[in-house]
Amino acid sequence: MADEPRRLEELSTRESMRLLGSVALGRVAFTVRALPAIRPVRHIVDEDHVIVCAESGIPITSAKDETGTVVAYQADAIDPAENLGWSVTVVGVAHRVADPAAADFFRRALQHWADGGNDQIISISPGIVTGFRLSQR
Amino acid sequence: MADEPRRLEELSTRESMRLLGSVALGRVAFTVRALPAIRPVRHIVDEDHVIVCAESGIPITSAKDETGTVVAYQADAIDPAENLGWSVTVVGVAHRVADPAAADFFRRALQHWADGGNDQIISISPGIVTGFRLSQR
Repeated sequence: MADEPRRLEELSTRESMRLLGSVALGRVAFTVRALPAIRPVRHIVDEDHVIVCAESGIPITSAKDETGTVVAYQADAIDPAENLGWSVTVVGVAHRVADPAAADFFRRALQHWADGGNDQIISISPGIVTGFRLSQR
Repeated sequence: MADEPRRLEELSTRESMRLLGSVALGRVAFTVRALPAIRPVRHIVDEDHVIVCAESGIPITSAKDETGTVVAYQADAIDPAENLGWSVTVVGVAHRVADPAAADFFRRALQHWADGGNDQIISISPGIVTGFRLSQR
């Protein structure tokens, strides 16, 4: 078990986006009736956008919301026994992917756990990208 | 790779809290200057409170905030290749643990990655507890 403090190193935007693209699962944080909410979802990184899939009932953003909704998206790979690994967080504007062909393409790529058709495909445009790596001193 | 939809079963509060207590790592979602933020932290479940440890600079809640701050806390164990596992989310009021002896006790139990003394111990009182399990149909 890790009982020594770890070195916490900040990551560049480029390295953060690379690490984000190396895993399939993360968590989207958003606001529901002024309360914070989090949901685990699958993601892919597509040309600097983070594309996620959530069940249709999860109120992240609506198809009618043309200005988009600010969300935070986070993924990590931290070994809980050793306290080693990394975490990346993206804060940005989320939009529903309205184009049916694009949504279908992403739906197949995402391999979400919900029924196809009973989900929403959301594109997050990263505004602020931060990340850190925990390593041994 | 999982290409079939999964059965998504809602979990009871009791089962959700049991699962939350079975893992050491989760993510706290909070608000910073009206923007959503997420941070991975270590946690323990202590008599129905979720105790987490974060580096001192993370603006979750302050020692001066006597009314507390509403946060969401989430942990999961989802196999990204198989889309099987569970996720639990707690929404509740977070307070800094002000008592030094209690904070020291939790600090040792939490085995956080930051330096002791350079961190904050936060207690979350679960208001809304939700969880789901993904299983094969």
